[in-house]
Amino acid sequence: MTQPIIAFLGTGLMGAPMVRNLLTAGHQVQVWNRTATKAQPLAAHGAIIQPTAGQAVEGAGIIISMMADGGATSQVMCGDTVISTLRKGQIWIEMASVKPDEARAQAAFLKQHQVPHLDAPVSGGTAGAESATLAIMVGGDSAIFDKAAPVLRCLGTPTRVGPSGTGQLAKLANQGIVGITIGAVAEAMLLLQKGGADPAAVRLALKGGFADSTILQLHGARMTDNDLTARGRAATQLKDMNNIMEEAEKLSLTLPMSAEIQTRFAVLCNEMGDADLDHAALYLELLKRN
Amino acid sequence: MTQPIIAFLGTGLMGAPMVRNLLTAGHQVQVWNRTATKAQPLAAHGAIIQPTAGQAVEGAGIIISMMADGGATSQVMCGDTVISTLRKGQIWIEMASVKPDEARAQAAFLKQHQVPHLDAPVSGGTAGAESATLAIMVGGDSAIFDKAAPVLRCLGTPTRVGPSGTGQLAKLANQGIVGITIGAVAEAMLLLQKGGADPAAVRLALKGGFADSTILQLHGARMTDNDLTARGRAATQLKDMNNIMEEAEKLSLTLPMSAEIQTRFAVLCNEMGDADLDHAALYLELLKRN
Repeated sequence: MTQPIIAFLGTGLMGAPMVRNLLTAGHQVQVWNRTATKAQPLAAHGAIIQPTAGQAVEGAGIIISMMADGGATSQVMCGDTVISTLRKGQIWIEMASVKPDEARAQAAFLKQHQVPHLDAPVSGGTAGAESATLAIMVGGDSAIFDKAAPVLRCLGTPTRVGPSGTGQLAKLANQGIVGITIGAVAEAMLLLQKGGADPAAVRLALKGGFADSTILQLHGARMTDNDLTARGRAATQLKDMNNIMEEAEKLSLTLPMSAEIQTRFAVLCNEMGDADLDHAALYLELLKRN
Repeated sequence: MTQPIIAFLGTGLMGAPMVRNLLTAGHQVQVWNRTATKAQPLAAHGAIIQPTAGQAVEGAGIIISMMADGGATSQVMCGDTVISTLRKGQIWIEMASVKPDEARAQAAFLKQHQVPHLDAPVSGGTAGAESATLAIMVGGDSAIFDKAAPVLRCLGTPTRVGPSGTGQLAKLANQGIVGITIGAVAEAMLLLQKGGADPAAVRLALKGGFADSTILQLHGARMTDNDLTARGRAATQLKDMNNIMEEAEKLSLTLPMSAEIQTRFAVLCNEMGDADLDHAALYLELLKRN
């Protein structure tokens, strides 16, 4: 069985290593990026660089979009060069983190062109993209998931979590847990410091127990070492919390801790001016109260 | 070098397997329990059962207390049979979870008798006690920790986290993170369920990522499977949250998420009558709001 040709739209920090992994797995990859020069280095790895998104999409079995946000994807998806090349049987996979509603709107739009759609946002950052170990949360039809899964496995571990839009919902759930856990760890670190314990020793002691998490070990250390250079920006965490609350409102859900963390990240980013620090900087907002 | 004789006071669900591990490591263990019949089975493993706490303490190099709470320990520690047998050079290790202030008061009392004290509460439950893999958070003098560490290593992994009382503070930090993380996971599970995603698939997808934790995997499943038989009681979680807030007040600290979780566990236990369910039952309190 021949491997499908991949169209890959958006070769930024995440997209570029993902393209390399698809090439390594033996796929032909037709690449397009808004700023063409950024895609150019991928040619040395065997990618075919195309001057328009439409030309990248032409003849591809699977189209992967990995652009800045849902708006950027929609603009390209609904643009003339792409619409005129889309053909029945292609599969479009949105791997950027967009709102669940945007993902569902993409799916509805593509359905008119008989192109099925999956939303498949990822977790794991650039390190996960490089090492092809991304956690991939997939929403969409299960038969389409089965067809696309071999391609996604070149990038990490895909898991179907439900119908269209639920991949994005899973990503939001992920981000919400991360935000609240940062809040939990901040309070623990402050309690330990003010109470005279050594937070680094406590993090070590708690390793492997019920309270342990990557957030406790990594973000906890960032807090007490005052090492708040952004690995994940506070502004991005705020955007995620805003999206969670927007989704909760649509579902008429009361989520008290998510709401509180949203408010506090807004204070950190907008009032304290720390939007560009790491999301562990929520610790500074807690310190300001104390 | 001969191994020190251990006095072990309190042979309940946690204490009994800890005594067995000390015996396995070759220690002579002199055991006392308020209800003597409960200690009796340990005789078959080689423990010497004593009718009074004082007789258990007599001649021991290290005294370990593992009773219900700080009040129970104090009563035995200050009782006639123990005071009259305490001698200089013995080390007392409080391994029960008690308040930091209670631990410090124990240390001050024993200092009068020239008996140094460590507070060394544990995390890991009966499974950790059985397998000698308890996380042991130790507060107290570092030279005394070094002397006691070989004995504690028969029970798990001891880490010194600071001066007297800080072992208990670390345990509170642990419990606070657990309580808040349960709150975070509850909101994520509800969002996923109402949004049409499969929570079990999402938990699988998030494994190993930034949002992952034992709480996500275990307590998340308890929530969406409605499997709320107590492994950790909601009432105990409330007691822990109360102790955290009491400690925070003494240190003049504002801990907003801990405060909110305390209030909500109080509603769950006192208004909803679910004190005897698992602490994952905080999900029911969230459902009630929705």
